[in-house]
Amino acid sequence: MVILVDAMGGDNAPGDIVEGCIKAVNEEPGFNIMLIGDSGKIEKILKKNKFNGSRIDILHAAEAITNEDIPTKAIKNKKDSSMVIGLELVKDKKADAFISAGNTGALLTGSILILGRLEGIDRPALATIIPTKRGGALLIDAGFNTMCKPLNYFQFGVIGTIYMREMFDIKTPTVGLINVGSEERKGNETIKQAYNMLSNSNLNFVGNIEGREIPEGKINIAVCDGFVGNILLKFMEGVGSFIFEGLRDVYSKNFFSKLASVLVRGELKKFKKRFDYEEYGGAPVLGVNGTVFKCHGSSNAKSVKNAVIRACHFARSSIAEQIKKEICRMEVKNVGT
Amino acid sequence: MVILVDAMGGDNAPGDIVEGCIKAVNEEPGFNIMLIGDSGKIEKILKKNKFNGSRIDILHAAEAITNEDIPTKAIKNKKDSSMVIGLELVKDKKADAFISAGNTGALLTGSILILGRLEGIDRPALATIIPTKRGGALLIDAGFNTMCKPLNYFQFGVIGTIYMREMFDIKTPTVGLINVGSEERKGNETIKQAYNMLSNSNLNFVGNIEGREIPEGKINIAVCDGFVGNILLKFMEGVGSFIFEGLRDVYSKNFFSKLASVLVRGELKKFKKRFDYEEYGGAPVLGVNGTVFKCHGSSNAKSVKNAVIRACHFARSSIAEQIKKEICRMEVKNVGT
Repeated sequence: MVILVDAMGGDNAPGDIVEGCIKAVNEEPGFNIMLIGDSGKIEKILKKNKFNGSRIDILHAAEAITNEDIPTKAIKNKKDSSMVIGLELVKDKKADAFISAGNTGALLTGSILILGRLEGIDRPALATIIPTKRGGALLIDAGFNTMCKPLNYFQFGVIGTIYMREMFDIKTPTVGLINVGSEERKGNETIKQAYNMLSNSNLNFVGNIEGREIPEGKINIAVCDGFVGNILLKFMEGVGSFIFEGLRDVYSKNFFSKLASVLVRGELKKFKKRFDYEEYGGAPVLGVNGTVFKCHGSSNAKSVKNAVIRACHFARSSIAEQIKKEICRMEVKNVGT
Repeated sequence: MVILVDAMGGDNAPGDIVEGCIKAVNEEPGFNIMLIGDSGKIEKILKKNKFNGSRIDILHAAEAITNEDIPTKAIKNKKDSSMVIGLELVKDKKADAFISAGNTGALLTGSILILGRLEGIDRPALATIIPTKRGGALLIDAGFNTMCKPLNYFQFGVIGTIYMREMFDIKTPTVGLINVGSEERKGNETIKQAYNMLSNSNLNFVGNIEGREIPEGKINIAVCDGFVGNILLKFMEGVGSFIFEGLRDVYSKNFFSKLASVLVRGELKKFKKRFDYEEYGGAPVLGVNGTVFKCHGSSNAKSVKNAVIRACHFARSSIAEQIKKEICRMEVKNVGT
């Protein structure tokens, strides 16, 4: 099992990316890592750490795709970037997975152009776990496709279902369509048609779900387009940060509140962890011919470590095969695209 | 100043609605209230309370619009409902404002059909204050228009600016366009054209804002379509509820955590209030010929009371006149609709 990691993508690259990989090999067996990027910089960081040297390799990449690069141009022109090199190696089956905290648009574009879509998939999607009262729910599409057809929502439901079944052992994951109300006739035309496709499918579709029902944990999979998904995801980060920072102020008001903070420190830390994207370790790109994980741009070492472990699990699974099978097999009555 | 209140709309009607009106007249001078609805039920509640009897009247309405009613049909067919009666009275200038916690779609449809749009306004919007690190920001459109043209986003920016200027005394409110990234070229075609219109206007437009920047308080006005707005609003409620319920569990773990909760109770309560929609008192419908406020469906008495006070302030202002003036006057270069 070889996991490729883009050492140059993200705000904390290459430092935290490399350290995350070291943590991963130190804590888990069963895979090797190839760090792709500026080999000089990578080596410097590796030298400062203790780890099994046979488990981490370096592959030099002369170029790097930045967050300012236009995705399609970057993929076409920067052939010697860590992202393009990594995706090509996965395509050629010389590695099992590719992980990057870099330019999200470039990662999607690259995944589609280099790896290609799984047969039958119209648009791949980014899927991410968000914390809920019942643990976590999959938000799909979390930010790839800003405009979707009804077919896309339907397919997100299918691939999300397979992902949650295989990765989290949920027998019949529930699927909800994010909408402005629970009644069937809510939303614009596209949403209404998406509703019809989902409800006429074999999925465990529970209907429309309102914004507040997502954190309530009403469903395992929340389906939306990438515009709504990306905004919700970042909004949640902002709200979480707002509330926990506000709590910090509450606790620092006076002697008694400081005492209070000491008394609940452990439990509060545990609770806060549920909102920490670093715990969830990256979001898979679902619907392409290969295992690709996107890490948060601000990912630190822990986040990268968790992404490596999650990518291994994914690469070992039969998710891609199941997606191909189910997409072709899905009987959909009254299809409207 | 006469404020009309729909006594029959919302989950806690008529009880909390009536009690909210009683609180309002007991705490603030300068207006009278006319409660519209089932006069028998309203009277029963009024009799149990102490208040200045000359400040609250009842107007009987034989019908009621429910949450299940289809908005256009309800407005056209239920002429003797509190909502239709109230809007007609505002239209005939026999009252200064109408407040309802009932069917949101019906309230919008009714406002447009009965009151009519302000001259130059393409689509009215629901605007609501959401808590941020810097106090609060206006989210517009918070749930009326599920599909918008670039012109609508632009006009939301204009009317939101006037509202924040007049109601909260902010000289040049900042306007942001909710998007999937800060770069100018982000989002779908409609969003890109909306960006152009906003940046070519006289508004204090700061550009695109990502989901996390809204709770950070980066802007005074966050512009989006009603689909995104409604989902964000309800999502925020869900996240807030999730976190504060989780905190309750943290505090009830053991003796020390219970002690901690006592020590921070006051400050925590103050902080929680910032997330309590009941403090914000209703959301105005902006862009129609009259003052209309929508209260949250689960509004309790405090929420209704605050909505009454907010509606008085709005009715006394010159917001509607300023909107008409500015919409007509706005020089927009490179208009794309």
